[in-house]
Amino acid sequence: MKKEYLLTPGPTPLPPQISLAMARPIIHHRTPQFQEILKEVNLGLKWVFQTTNDVFIISSSGTGAMEAAVVNLLSCGDTALVVQGGKFGERWTEICNSYGIKAEIIDVEWGKAIDPELIKKKLAANPAIKAVFTTLCETSTGVDTDIAAIGKIIKETPAVLVVDAISGLGAVDIKTDIWGIDMVVSGSQKGLMLPPGLGFISVSPKAWKLVESSKTGRYYLDLRKAKKALDKNDTPFTSSITLIIALNEAIKMMQKDGLEYIFNRHKTMADATRAAMKALGLELFAPTAASNGVTAVKVPAGIDGEKLVKTMRDTYGVTIAGGQAELKGKIFRIAHMGYIAESDIITGLACLEKVLTQLGYKFNLGAGVKAAEEVFLKAA
Amino acid sequence: MKKEYLLTPGPTPLPPQISLAMARPIIHHRTPQFQEILKEVNLGLKWVFQTTNDVFIISSSGTGAMEAAVVNLLSCGDTALVVQGGKFGERWTEICNSYGIKAEIIDVEWGKAIDPELIKKKLAANPAIKAVFTTLCETSTGVDTDIAAIGKIIKETPAVLVVDAISGLGAVDIKTDIWGIDMVVSGSQKGLMLPPGLGFISVSPKAWKLVESSKTGRYYLDLRKAKKALDKNDTPFTSSITLIIALNEAIKMMQKDGLEYIFNRHKTMADATRAAMKALGLELFAPTAASNGVTAVKVPAGIDGEKLVKTMRDTYGVTIAGGQAELKGKIFRIAHMGYIAESDIITGLACLEKVLTQLGYKFNLGAGVKAAEEVFLKAA
Repeated sequence: MKKEYLLTPGPTPLPPQISLAMARPIIHHRTPQFQEILKEVNLGLKWVFQTTNDVFIISSSGTGAMEAAVVNLLSCGDTALVVQGGKFGERWTEICNSYGIKAEIIDVEWGKAIDPELIKKKLAANPAIKAVFTTLCETSTGVDTDIAAIGKIIKETPAVLVVDAISGLGAVDIKTDIWGIDMVVSGSQKGLMLPPGLGFISVSPKAWKLVESSKTGRYYLDLRKAKKALDKNDTPFTSSITLIIALNEAIKMMQKDGLEYIFNRHKTMADATRAAMKALGLELFAPTAASNGVTAVKVPAGIDGEKLVKTMRDTYGVTIAGGQAELKGKIFRIAHMGYIAESDIITGLACLEKVLTQLGYKFNLGAGVKAAEEVFLKAA
Repeated sequence: MKKEYLLTPGPTPLPPQISLAMARPIIHHRTPQFQEILKEVNLGLKWVFQTTNDVFIISSSGTGAMEAAVVNLLSCGDTALVVQGGKFGERWTEICNSYGIKAEIIDVEWGKAIDPELIKKKLAANPAIKAVFTTLCETSTGVDTDIAAIGKIIKETPAVLVVDAISGLGAVDIKTDIWGIDMVVSGSQKGLMLPPGLGFISVSPKAWKLVESSKTGRYYLDLRKAKKALDKNDTPFTSSITLIIALNEAIKMMQKDGLEYIFNRHKTMADATRAAMKALGLELFAPTAASNGVTAVKVPAGIDGEKLVKTMRDTYGVTIAGGQAELKGKIFRIAHMGYIAESDIITGLACLEKVLTQLGYKFNLGAGVKAAEEVFLKAA
């Protein structure tokens, strides 16, 4: 018997009530019954996104929603500013490049957060910049970005602020309206506790002006079509019915807890994980801007990082994430996002200690779990 | 107690074993465990599509996969030929228009199938046509198209043949390789017995040449990225894990029956439905090219078509489809596609007879069900 634990930053585990909602007989999407659900979901998304703007649902992975932001805002030849400090920041650049949009890049050292003042300087130096693309939680490095500070800067300019909150939404605070974020992009498989397959995008009035003037070809991702449908509690194309019904359940679960409680819960799990790493003598990859959604940790010298992840998963059933791209084998990542609880963190830490010991790493067995327990006790 | 029946051409009902597969705990997509599933699914899709070409999975509705066909094949200024005999034929034109691709249209009267010779003439008259877009089963009118004949014509030309088989695949025969179809586009929520959320697209070597030369901007729908990932049993972006696991189950169910059995089963249900309509004195909307996936029927004079559909659904729990666009209120559609069986057809017909009687239509009560029983007995 092997019990499976998923401690990855997307997909995250599914609550059993969500799984059961998905197992219900399917209903047709062009019916008053489904319209009622969509109406609830559309309101619920505004609550999660902390906005009065419309939030659109796209049947796609989060990347589809990122592309929707780019093609609806900008046209070939336009200039964008991209904050690039990891694999997902790079994705903004790649999408822009695919459409002939000039991406002016601020390269941030992987594992560090951007200094918002740099954005201010870039915008002042190049008034052609129409949109600034950023990442709330850069999953590949475990860094959270100070979106509040960036929002304050961009609000005063003609540019729009777009935040990839695929990772982070529902785990880390993001005040769309108060911080002045024009587009928040997200996905279903992280803080929202659903399987992958839904993308989301909120659109401010400032962003709508660009949506209406963008000359980029688009159909499936055309937000003008999405808006027409939304106003009738509909979607422009057959939507992922099952996932939307599950989303409705997820939002209700979240509303019972409240956003403040949810963000505190995530912070406590992140604090516990970080304290455990310190107790184990391990170094955080992003010590100065560590995310409350996922903790990235440097693999200690002499230990095979890929083997560590593989052994935890294949031998003991605990799936954590390794490093991506240039960080492959160099870091591992423990997620504490969505339907992950104290108990999962303790399980993950104990398994990590077990495998680290087997791989020959020297430390006081139990020290990591103890440090986490201390944090949890303090927060109780 | 109201028992619900779904007799709509997408979504179609879900087999309980599929629903249960979706309720399993989710697994991570970048693991050997999921790669193994993707490998099986990729092989299984080739079997369903009757092709040795690669079949790509896109996390989107069917329309996303249609758009993938257009943007990967053609560039702004190119010319396409669109066979347009219903709402879904029109979608090809709309997508082309969104990208500045000239759509030369063959307008087919709704409810009729195209004469393939017309395509031959158009291609001869305009050698600029690079791609021909058609529809296997035009769900909005209940018409099946003779793709075999069209394939024979296009094979001899430099143009590529693209078939929207979103509706039809897994219910109606489509011999991708034998008929020479360069791209077959499909979706999950019809013959494949899954919820909506997955799009599929097969690509022939002839089509690949265009994919490599298309200048249209694309990222999420870029088949070159999909190909790179597929070759490693991967997907370019986080895929709809739950639906892919369910797809694996669906294909296994289908393989137990075999394609010939499946197509015959659908033909028998279609024959039964058509015989029932005749016995009730109702007129088929597409008498000369009636689809084996869905039967479209003219609402008889004096009967409120929208009320008919609404009463069957809201009062008795049997959901059939009404007419779309210009056919609203004028036709109703009974699907016999995917996980719909003899028993569902009998239930649907009995409910139809009940509501027709209540609405004042005159006929011999039981005549429709009897006619269907006769067809089922003969096929037994």
